[in-house]
Amino acid sequence: MSFSYDGSKYNGYQKQPDAKTIQDEIEKVLKKINSNNDVSLVASGRTDAGVHAYSQHAHFDLVNELDCAKLRNSMNSLLPKDIYVKAIAIVDDDFHARFNVKAKEYIYKINMGNYNPIEKDYIYQYNKRLDIPEMSRALKYLEGTHDFRAFVKIDEEKNDYVRTIVNTNLIRDSKNVNLITISILGTGFMRYMVRNIVGTLIEIGEGKYKSEDIIKIMEQKDRKNAGACAPACGLYLKDVYY
Amino acid sequence: MSFSYDGSKYNGYQKQPDAKTIQDEIEKVLKKINSNNDVSLVASGRTDAGVHAYSQHAHFDLVNELDCAKLRNSMNSLLPKDIYVKAIAIVDDDFHARFNVKAKEYIYKINMGNYNPIEKDYIYQYNKRLDIPEMSRALKYLEGTHDFRAFVKIDEEKNDYVRTIVNTNLIRDSKNVNLITISILGTGFMRYMVRNIVGTLIEIGEGKYKSEDIIKIMEQKDRKNAGACAPACGLYLKDVYY
Repeated sequence: MSFSYDGSKYNGYQKQPDAKTIQDEIEKVLKKINSNNDVSLVASGRTDAGVHAYSQHAHFDLVNELDCAKLRNSMNSLLPKDIYVKAIAIVDDDFHARFNVKAKEYIYKINMGNYNPIEKDYIYQYNKRLDIPEMSRALKYLEGTHDFRAFVKIDEEKNDYVRTIVNTNLIRDSKNVNLITISILGTGFMRYMVRNIVGTLIEIGEGKYKSEDIIKIMEQKDRKNAGACAPACGLYLKDVYY
Repeated sequence: MSFSYDGSKYNGYQKQPDAKTIQDEIEKVLKKINSNNDVSLVASGRTDAGVHAYSQHAHFDLVNELDCAKLRNSMNSLLPKDIYVKAIAIVDDDFHARFNVKAKEYIYKINMGNYNPIEKDYIYQYNKRLDIPEMSRALKYLEGTHDFRAFVKIDEEKNDYVRTIVNTNLIRDSKNVNLITISILGTGFMRYMVRNIVGTLIEIGEGKYKSEDIIKIMEQKDRKNAGACAPACGLYLKDVYY
């Protein structure tokens, strides 16, 4: 199943006690459709509170085989209006929405212009000028296979921080020159990795560091040397590739 | 004062008992700043529940003269994040934010593509194809001075329904071909007029009427012959001219 959601009113994708989450809303609907049997939704990965998805993917099993188009329509009629099932297809029994991910694309939106209350939950209201060419150059240094420890919280039990960023882009909107969109396509991402990368790019755009400094920051493998975590509202899971 | 707001969580601009309104939020803040004396905000006009404003305008009087830039900053620090004061300037004593309006511009956004939960409060999710050239032609027939009775609710006490539409545009977004934006600049608008015009354009886009039929609809001066009122979420007060 591929689905999109507005994350602004949820406590993230992943189910947790006493909090409104995307997973919970979808599982509640699937349980109704599945003759009141519990359904576990396995997504490509979580998204944090306030983060949006244009195309998240998940798999699940139902008691009875149902027509995919009808299932999609039933789900959309029962789901809240800020979650939407885009497509459903039957997959092989061994398909796994998380383990089979080949790549994911995230985008991050920043408004350098005046504060806009209408887009506050959807575009990071940075509201100051940034050095776009310098940020673009820095972003390009991240492409390839690197140890991304500098951009994540260290987890004592984990020791593999190497990921591959396949492609990146920083685009300035042709009509609204104050809107910049950063896109990052990679084979794997860790929690807060994109937001920490964006936070670092912003400090480069402010002139605090030069574009090449991002290489040093990566090599130092110390979260403290990278920039602050950029706000959740600007982040979108754009697509998941299998 | 010029200000912008996200109307999605408000019961419209205008103050009313037991409802959250934009005017109320701003007047509460102004009262605090005005040594706890009540302040009446006089806007260019109301906007209905769910309608947004890129640039609404209003005037008010304070007990003491304050520095405009400082006043703006104080207001923005006290206002909820979905209302934002863009600029404040001192005006002549006889300036009136409603009576002195020379023209207003409204825009209306429609998504003809797939339902997008992320933009549901900001773009009308029509989610079907529309005949754009036919709608554009119909829109152009509205330019000029006409009796717009067909597009408003008849008020027994009112008999002047003649207004002038100075300029109109229907633009299909160059990147997102499913996004259409209708803009209408006029010297005066009546309640629901823009939304009823858009609703009629949509029925023309659906092929229910031809573009020229809008002339007949206008001439018949009967609300029943025009299209349904388009949802509030797609409507924005773009600017007010004095």
